[in-house]
Amino acid sequence: MAKQLREPEEALYPAPVVLVTCIDEKGRSNIITLAWVGIICSEPPMIGISIRPSRYSNSLIKESKEFVVNIPTVDLLRKVDYCGTVSGKTVDKFKEAGFTPESAAKVRSSLIKECPVNIECKLKQQLTLGVHDLFLGEVVAIHTTEEILNEEGKIDYAKAKPLVFNQGEYWNLGKKLENYGFSQGRIKEIPFKSELIGEDQVVA
Amino acid sequence: MAKQLREPEEALYPAPVVLVTCIDEKGRSNIITLAWVGIICSEPPMIGISIRPSRYSNSLIKESKEFVVNIPTVDLLRKVDYCGTVSGKTVDKFKEAGFTPESAAKVRSSLIKECPVNIECKLKQQLTLGVHDLFLGEVVAIHTTEEILNEEGKIDYAKAKPLVFNQGEYWNLGKKLENYGFSQGRIKEIPFKSELIGEDQVVA
Repeated sequence: MAKQLREPEEALYPAPVVLVTCIDEKGRSNIITLAWVGIICSEPPMIGISIRPSRYSNSLIKESKEFVVNIPTVDLLRKVDYCGTVSGKTVDKFKEAGFTPESAAKVRSSLIKECPVNIECKLKQQLTLGVHDLFLGEVVAIHTTEEILNEEGKIDYAKAKPLVFNQGEYWNLGKKLENYGFSQGRIKEIPFKSELIGEDQVVA
Repeated sequence: MAKQLREPEEALYPAPVVLVTCIDEKGRSNIITLAWVGIICSEPPMIGISIRPSRYSNSLIKESKEFVVNIPTVDLLRKVDYCGTVSGKTVDKFKEAGFTPESAAKVRSSLIKECPVNIECKLKQQLTLGVHDLFLGEVVAIHTTEEILNEEGKIDYAKAKPLVFNQGEYWNLGKKLENYGFSQGRIKEIPFKSELIGEDQVVA
């Protein structure tokens, strides 16, 4: 079947759905829901997040030079959506959404207790690209609830139940199909600290 | 339940799984499987992809200043994994994986015919972060097969069946839960060109 040629847009899918927390000058933490988020480097571990300059969190991250990536479960969907539709300029989202702040280990922003994984990041670089600024953060600490771990201490994604974002639609995860490297039959188990999928990795 | 504090690593999930094509100086297209990929800007639409300097595709993109993000379906999983475990330095991956090259509209690299969505990008910037280089590409053209579109011309993700990557594990998509903005009850339908989930967006 023939393909349609379309105008440029941000057509990539799927994307993660995360709650990013950051802190204002008075020490109050804010929450912003983001999907334009991804891993950008394995060593040092780094995460990129894109936020429009008009968003309250944008200025907070520029000033505080830190943020936390909190990964929600599908059970939190209504709160996640709420935090993506109101502004921290006028609303205390921790209070209104009913999230519980927890102290971080290496940054000042609060973690969200209800999220099973919290990734503390320090801002290394920021880029103005267009309607979004790209913030490059280095991971400095990670917190995980034991409830989502298997016996080997690795995350069981059937328990972690992340949200998946497809251009305006929230989806859940289906089932596990295979481990990376299965086509070569050389990897029986993936280490917890898994890698970018890349050329050479399994066979080299 | 208490949380465990862990050492820094690239702990974000889920991630997309894509096949990036790029071209060498002789006009031959290569394929690399990537998961460290994400939308970084809506206007102009931009995608960030991270690749280790040792990978063959890294040097090709640096020289050609372009790449194509091809989004596979779960049915292509074995080929996707294969293209992430051998090097284009020694293997013609189009031939060995059995993928069909298609001409792009605005770049020289081949599209992968079997992928229902192909996103052509021109390199705008590259950053050396650590073990990965981050390439920032601007989307210049998109191709979609009609087979994955609904009656309104929007992508039906139940038909597009993307792969989801969770730290070394390939998963499939589950089911659609809600549209962005549902918690406010103000958006009945999401436009095809959906946005970053951000503060203010629905209520402002």
